[in-house]
Amino acid sequence: MNTSTTRPARSAGAAGPTPAELGIGMRFSIHPHTDDFVEVILGALADVEQAGLTKDLVIETDEVSTYVGVRTAPAEQRLAAYLSAVITAATRRSGGGHVVAHVLLSRGCPGEVACDLSVTGLPDPDPVALERTGIRAAAQWSLYPLLDAGDGGGRPDHMAHIETAIAAARDRGTAAAAAHYATKLTGDVADVLATAVDAWAQVGARVPHVVTHLTISVGSPTQAGN
Amino acid sequence: MNTSTTRPARSAGAAGPTPAELGIGMRFSIHPHTDDFVEVILGALADVEQAGLTKDLVIETDEVSTYVGVRTAPAEQRLAAYLSAVITAATRRSGGGHVVAHVLLSRGCPGEVACDLSVTGLPDPDPVALERTGIRAAAQWSLYPLLDAGDGGGRPDHMAHIETAIAAARDRGTAAAAAHYATKLTGDVADVLATAVDAWAQVGARVPHVVTHLTISVGSPTQAGN
Repeated sequence: MNTSTTRPARSAGAAGPTPAELGIGMRFSIHPHTDDFVEVILGALADVEQAGLTKDLVIETDEVSTYVGVRTAPAEQRLAAYLSAVITAATRRSGGGHVVAHVLLSRGCPGEVACDLSVTGLPDPDPVALERTGIRAAAQWSLYPLLDAGDGGGRPDHMAHIETAIAAARDRGTAAAAAHYATKLTGDVADVLATAVDAWAQVGARVPHVVTHLTISVGSPTQAGN
Repeated sequence: MNTSTTRPARSAGAAGPTPAELGIGMRFSIHPHTDDFVEVILGALADVEQAGLTKDLVIETDEVSTYVGVRTAPAEQRLAAYLSAVITAATRRSGGGHVVAHVLLSRGCPGEVACDLSVTGLPDPDPVALERTGIRAAAQWSLYPLLDAGDGGGRPDHMAHIETAIAAARDRGTAAAAAHYATKLTGDVADVLATAVDAWAQVGARVPHVVTHLTISVGSPTQAGN
């Protein structure tokens, strides 16, 4: 663990930690189920860059996935817009074939293992606003509040945050069903992404370290139709 | 949340909670990057069933992923052997092409949202033993201890468990590098899976609710060679 630093408590007008200080970012991988997967992936990433959506993002690709870090606000909006555009471009480039993206969104643990979990003045960001893509997705979504001191000073209750987030997804119309270890989301790619990103950001206004995982599937031949 | 039930504290010879009571299981999806992905996936699942590896497992596939629950010990061994066989069969059936599996392993939250987090007598399972597959994998691995009361009665420290698990992976030779939000693992598919499964089970001997996510990639054209 690295050394904790003290930051000013949040108050009206006071600047809280920046997205970079909070380590807001994601890792994602995208899987077009086609022989042409290399062309589809590289083409989609180029499309999104040409559309200007990589501005202020730090993007590093390795053998398994791509890291996307955000240095400036609105961090959640930048990540969600980038991701929606990548999935849309890959779907288009694969001729409407089956494409799956796996996404890990994280906040509160900026480095690799080392974290500063004593941060105060957590930001309470606005919901993301994404244009509809016209592409129907089904997703498996899990949310992990990793450090919860307990709002009332009591025993940590990470499940309460998860239940609140699932209720919000139900209100939004994207929560299709509960499943073991995950919630199934369905709807336009933009709505599914916004559900997961907003929940992660909202829990992150109260819990320092929050991760969410989303497996988002488009064009599956086993589509359930709901 | 459902009603907590009291279980006997663990002692020599006392039976702890069963795998079913702990909700030990996984969700996984497998992504062959080929036009023939449907045949590859269905064929691999059939291969594994014919090999007798689905015995005592509860398997339910939906549009996004497959749930695999375990009712009997050794739960971790059954899940790891099943997964290793599915990845091996899919790789073989895709002619050594690029195959990615995404896995979520969970313990301590048996139902859907509802959890019993007051469980005592957590089992301390043996490490899994998997035959080498001869297939080299690279993986992105994240471990989430979700309820940690603090071993010394102090503040929960989920990062300490994560650091211990990463040190074990280094000793094993599978931890290739730290990355933002994840550890990169490389090695034989069996060793990579065993690293993640054993770490999840070992943290689960001390923390009631533990989840781990593993994105495991085989045959990537961007293989880094390490």
